[in-house]
Amino acid sequence: MARIGKYSFDLISKPRIVSSASFVGEKEGAGPLGTAFDVSIKDDTLGLESWEKAESRMFESAVRLALFKLGLETDDLGCLIGGDLLNQIISAGFAARELKAPFIGLYSACSTITESMMIAGMMIEGGFTELAACAASSHFSSVERQYRYPLEMGTQSTPTAQRTVTGAGCVLLQGRDAKLPPKGRLFSNVAITGGTIGIVEDYGITDTSNMGAAMAPAAAKTIARHFEDTGRTPKDFDLILTGDLGRFGTEMLHELMAKEGFNIEAVHEDCGKLIFGYDPAVVCGGSGAGCAPSVFASHILPLIEAGEYKRVLFLATGALLSPLSSLQGESIPAIAHAVVVEHI
Amino acid sequence: MARIGKYSFDLISKPRIVSSASFVGEKEGAGPLGTAFDVSIKDDTLGLESWEKAESRMFESAVRLALFKLGLETDDLGCLIGGDLLNQIISAGFAARELKAPFIGLYSACSTITESMMIAGMMIEGGFTELAACAASSHFSSVERQYRYPLEMGTQSTPTAQRTVTGAGCVLLQGRDAKLPPKGRLFSNVAITGGTIGIVEDYGITDTSNMGAAMAPAAAKTIARHFEDTGRTPKDFDLILTGDLGRFGTEMLHELMAKEGFNIEAVHEDCGKLIFGYDPAVVCGGSGAGCAPSVFASHILPLIEAGEYKRVLFLATGALLSPLSSLQGESIPAIAHAVVVEHI
Repeated sequence: MARIGKYSFDLISKPRIVSSASFVGEKEGAGPLGTAFDVSIKDDTLGLESWEKAESRMFESAVRLALFKLGLETDDLGCLIGGDLLNQIISAGFAARELKAPFIGLYSACSTITESMMIAGMMIEGGFTELAACAASSHFSSVERQYRYPLEMGTQSTPTAQRTVTGAGCVLLQGRDAKLPPKGRLFSNVAITGGTIGIVEDYGITDTSNMGAAMAPAAAKTIARHFEDTGRTPKDFDLILTGDLGRFGTEMLHELMAKEGFNIEAVHEDCGKLIFGYDPAVVCGGSGAGCAPSVFASHILPLIEAGEYKRVLFLATGALLSPLSSLQGESIPAIAHAVVVEHI
Repeated sequence: MARIGKYSFDLISKPRIVSSASFVGEKEGAGPLGTAFDVSIKDDTLGLESWEKAESRMFESAVRLALFKLGLETDDLGCLIGGDLLNQIISAGFAARELKAPFIGLYSACSTITESMMIAGMMIEGGFTELAACAASSHFSSVERQYRYPLEMGTQSTPTAQRTVTGAGCVLLQGRDAKLPPKGRLFSNVAITGGTIGIVEDYGITDTSNMGAAMAPAAAKTIARHFEDTGRTPKDFDLILTGDLGRFGTEMLHELMAKEGFNIEAVHEDCGKLIFGYDPAVVCGGSGAGCAPSVFASHILPLIEAGEYKRVLFLATGALLSPLSSLQGESIPAIAHAVVVEHI
């Protein structure tokens, strides 16, 4: 039985993470991780007619590039699994139309990338696919106008706000014993070994400019459940990496974990904090479904490959924010799915 | 290897479908399948403040009722997998908050139910969960105002229009050898034995009142790929059941299948045609993410259990329609995921 405990599972065959790619915006490219990303675009429309089309193109390009690095083509893909923040996940959907791969569309807001890696890991372990692409994206300009205000209004950020990352990341998973790609594997020592499925948590946050507070409880619960199911503690990880809690959400997470009886501060990092560094213009850091995958794909994976990190608990965090349900008086539920990624 | 061919997979352990439930609206309850549904609601707000909240409550209730029939509770669920048509899948998301089960959120428009059954089948076969709930919903009034026009405008239907079904359906999947529920299984002879993962197809349809035409090519391609991968033909099925092509889409599907070299007319049915019968008020039939699951859960599953149908190819069809991308001049891509459900 690959299920362990109530919420977690082991991937006994240890599916491999064999390639990755990222496309980010100019601001992300100018940040402290700038050199790690594969491509930093200067024109955030990519010369297309809309930001939405540009985001979809970035999603598509990240998948194509991750395959290209191995000498593979889209036709080699057994499955494409992913999503984004736009209504009807149009970035992923239109990218999937171009990529012509069997497509499993997800909606899990900013926890999409770990949801997709979870499903891909299970599919590979069960023999349902040999090669799966996991991808997610977001775009500052497409997301702001959908979730908050038109950019033209020049609305000022509140002290808890985060900046939506313009970025797309793709991670390729392959069965341990699958045929080596023409150019070999970009990563030879990275495997996904398990995970914990998230539960929707809601602490009653209604401020749409405070996603960190909405998501921190979901992250805390998923980490605590992972520890409970597996018997692990923070000491068993070199890194616990959350998606986009930002600075405020990180503080909240540390407090919530302390209440659960764990101190994770020494091993915890957050992609939303890493991507922009301490830039006052982004207030609490980065966010968006493209934040965690681009940071993980380009900054973290090479460090796992190199053995700098032996075992990482990667949990992207999603605020299931809806402008409509917010107007109807609902609070913001959130979810966090976790995967364990190891140097092997 | 459970993967067969390029797009399809076998579920060798034959996970069982053990229970189901449906909640539908008054108009659906008054249709030819009316007595099959578990609950037909009279007030489409359920006394709540909005149609969206009512839809979410129907989603939640369908899951609770499917469990209740077996003497199980939400805490027994290993995983809840599903989605709906509303932005950020708020019907599923808020229902998942109440159900407190590990939740995998999907967006695949009206093909959500078969996408969820596919994933649940793989998860059960791989030992990642023992009991999974697959569910999807839609609501005429919440969907019309999001995708088309405010109901208050009284916009007239075009000749190819379909009426969005108010309904939610849930199907419970369990491992073959899993412990029998307290009240036994509602269905003892129904298994999911495989499926075919859909690819996004786009034939350039731009008419948002002609979903049948947008979805028929995706259905045809998935059926043809299933035949190609498995060596099966229409004769191997008692029923090929599409989700919500409606009358116009059904005609298109038959023509497209003829071009692929197959005549499926004798074994093909469509949930969108079945749910309202020949009611001129609904023009081409029903549609919506709740159409296929409510018809399948309440009308088709008992017929498979009884042996009336020995093998069914069930493919819900999703138009990945976005009001925004339509305004930006894009056509409507579509996808269809198929599962094979057998009397065993």
